[in-house]
Amino acid sequence: MQKFAFNRGRTIFNKGDGGSELFIISSGEVGIYFPSNAEMEKPDLILKSPEIFGEMAVIDDALRMATARAETDCVLLSVTRSEFEERLSNADVVVRGVVAILSERLRDLQKRR
Amino acid sequence: MQKFAFNRGRTIFNKGDGGSELFIISSGEVGIYFPSNAEMEKPDLILKSPEIFGEMAVIDDALRMATARAETDCVLLSVTRSEFEERLSNADVVVRGVVAILSERLRDLQKRR
Repeated sequence: MQKFAFNRGRTIFNKGDGGSELFIISSGEVGIYFPSNAEMEKPDLILKSPEIFGEMAVIDDALRMATARAETDCVLLSVTRSEFEERLSNADVVVRGVVAILSERLRDLQKRR
Repeated sequence: MQKFAFNRGRTIFNKGDGGSELFIISSGEVGIYFPSNAEMEKPDLILKSPEIFGEMAVIDDALRMATARAETDCVLLSVTRSEFEERLSNADVVVRGVVAILSERLRDLQKRR
């Protein structure tokens, strides 16, 4: 787990970027801008601590599907795919099975959109 | 966790049933029949040990979205929602957060279909 500070207005990642970590908001607000939001004047979603974003990167190889930007100064914790897999490997077998199946369903549904 | 034996041909649950448990296949084969499969002569999916099905019941209040039937004699383990929540509560905080967010995304996507 690594800690990052982003100043207000800074882009955390852009739609289409590669990426292999999820972010947990430690403080501040993060705006999520969907691809349909061409003007990007206002975020589609505003997330706060302790919300998570960018989670598809730890369960899939897909590129970032939206843009994330610091709406205020914020502090984020990042968890890479391998760190996530290590945490998951210590979890209960049923929990691991459910994470695997939810990931699979989500990938399938997102491919079909 | 409870153990159930189903004879070949027995219905495990029907689309539209209520239900608050997931099933883990211990032995045998389970057929999943999607709502679009009107004749139900052949399953859309065949699942085997150690695959999981019915998992939406532990993360959502939705009714069963497909029909599940024993294609061979089979033995299933069931995990209720409260059992799942207990297992999850012992998991790493990042794993718990990811299960919550995957569940939320999946519910949203399925509502929109």
